[in-house]
Amino acid sequence: MNDVLKVMTNHRSIRSYTNEPVNDEQLNAIMDAVQAAPTSINGQHVTVICVKDPVKKKKIAELVGNQAWVDQAPVFLLFCADFYRAKIAAELNGEELVITDSVESIIVGASDVGIAMSNAITAAESMGLGIVPIGGARRNPQELIELLDIPEYVFPVAGLVVGHPADPSALKPRLPREAVYHHEAYNRDLRGLIEKYDKQMADYMRERTGGQESRNWSQTVSSFYKQIYYPKVRPMLDKQGFDYK
Amino acid sequence: MNDVLKVMTNHRSIRSYTNEPVNDEQLNAIMDAVQAAPTSINGQHVTVICVKDPVKKKKIAELVGNQAWVDQAPVFLLFCADFYRAKIAAELNGEELVITDSVESIIVGASDVGIAMSNAITAAESMGLGIVPIGGARRNPQELIELLDIPEYVFPVAGLVVGHPADPSALKPRLPREAVYHHEAYNRDLRGLIEKYDKQMADYMRERTGGQESRNWSQTVSSFYKQIYYPKVRPMLDKQGFDYK
Repeated sequence: MNDVLKVMTNHRSIRSYTNEPVNDEQLNAIMDAVQAAPTSINGQHVTVICVKDPVKKKKIAELVGNQAWVDQAPVFLLFCADFYRAKIAAELNGEELVITDSVESIIVGASDVGIAMSNAITAAESMGLGIVPIGGARRNPQELIELLDIPEYVFPVAGLVVGHPADPSALKPRLPREAVYHHEAYNRDLRGLIEKYDKQMADYMRERTGGQESRNWSQTVSSFYKQIYYPKVRPMLDKQGFDYK
Repeated sequence: MNDVLKVMTNHRSIRSYTNEPVNDEQLNAIMDAVQAAPTSINGQHVTVICVKDPVKKKKIAELVGNQAWVDQAPVFLLFCADFYRAKIAAELNGEELVITDSVESIIVGASDVGIAMSNAITAAESMGLGIVPIGGARRNPQELIELLDIPEYVFPVAGLVVGHPADPSALKPRLPREAVYHHEAYNRDLRGLIEKYDKQMADYMRERTGGQESRNWSQTVSSFYKQIYYPKVRPMLDKQGFDYK
């Protein structure tokens, strides 16, 4: 296995950081990887806002759902899907920006952010840094937009905490390969594989929590997804100019 | 610069392939990287369908907008956002799957696919393979769904062509760093940076096409985005059970 594969397969989320700063050389290497990532139609729909200011970072830690590691780590990178530059491009050419009236802008924006953020993660981890992605950036998105002065046609997709790991964390088991990788057509025969994984995850949780917790995968997922857990995303998208249909 | 950063910053899309196959060891290494990627709430919303069958691949090449490299390269990986497993998880726990009634499922699905696909790209390139992402998977999504027997609560986000490069391609210049990377708040003063990049891209296009083509970035972007260029995504999402609001 080459070094690149080793870094990626060794990924784990870090929720405890030392106070050692992340330097500009490291942040620039992360941004080189972010910008090198492919983007749909070369649209380059990704914007990264780097927050180091302790007061702002503390506020963000609250907004994303009281996640202490956002406050503790030296750097918070907010990854946004960005059509504000596309709006400027349209203006420069006397055209209208219509794509933000379609769910296509949400899909392209979110998937391009994912591609870029993944490069940021791999870049950070290749330099010995730790990270944790923060989907909670969608918990109070309007407040985040105001705090960071984010313009129309831009929306926060996820945050990324970057710092020096204080504690290593365990590698979480994944769904069996056959449940996510299909050949020539989708194989719907998945229930048995999910039940097998549920057992494995319950064992993993029990081991990690000294027997306190034994929630399995399908319990976790179904408990999140029986509701719309970030209901403020829709009004935020409306306000930012995404009239998606 | 370490080897991991080198692979990512050297990324380019390959549109010409030899007929050498991609072997199972390589595909498994790609899938190891895909599955190691972080996912929102550990939901593991990503499904990869691997197509090697020449008849199916030829059909896909047409459906995504007559992209010859899909037919030419040995492997096409379709990356889907998948809530079908979440539906099974809900059933196993007597819960309802409600998240697919929200745009949250589109954002989470698309960004998780992006994160995973980026790992697939980096894994492939680290082994000397070439790739090109295929957003055209959203051009005729319903036909693709039928061809690959994709169930409800799953939608195609993008394809990935994988093979051995026949021709190296050039590194495409990117927007200036200051246009995508902001400190402590969004900086809206972007027009000058975009104009500077437009000039650079026009020069790059002229050089690559022997003077035949000089389209700049804002011309390309505004010409794509003055319309909804994949209008079949919305009815496909409805049909797949995404009643997003």
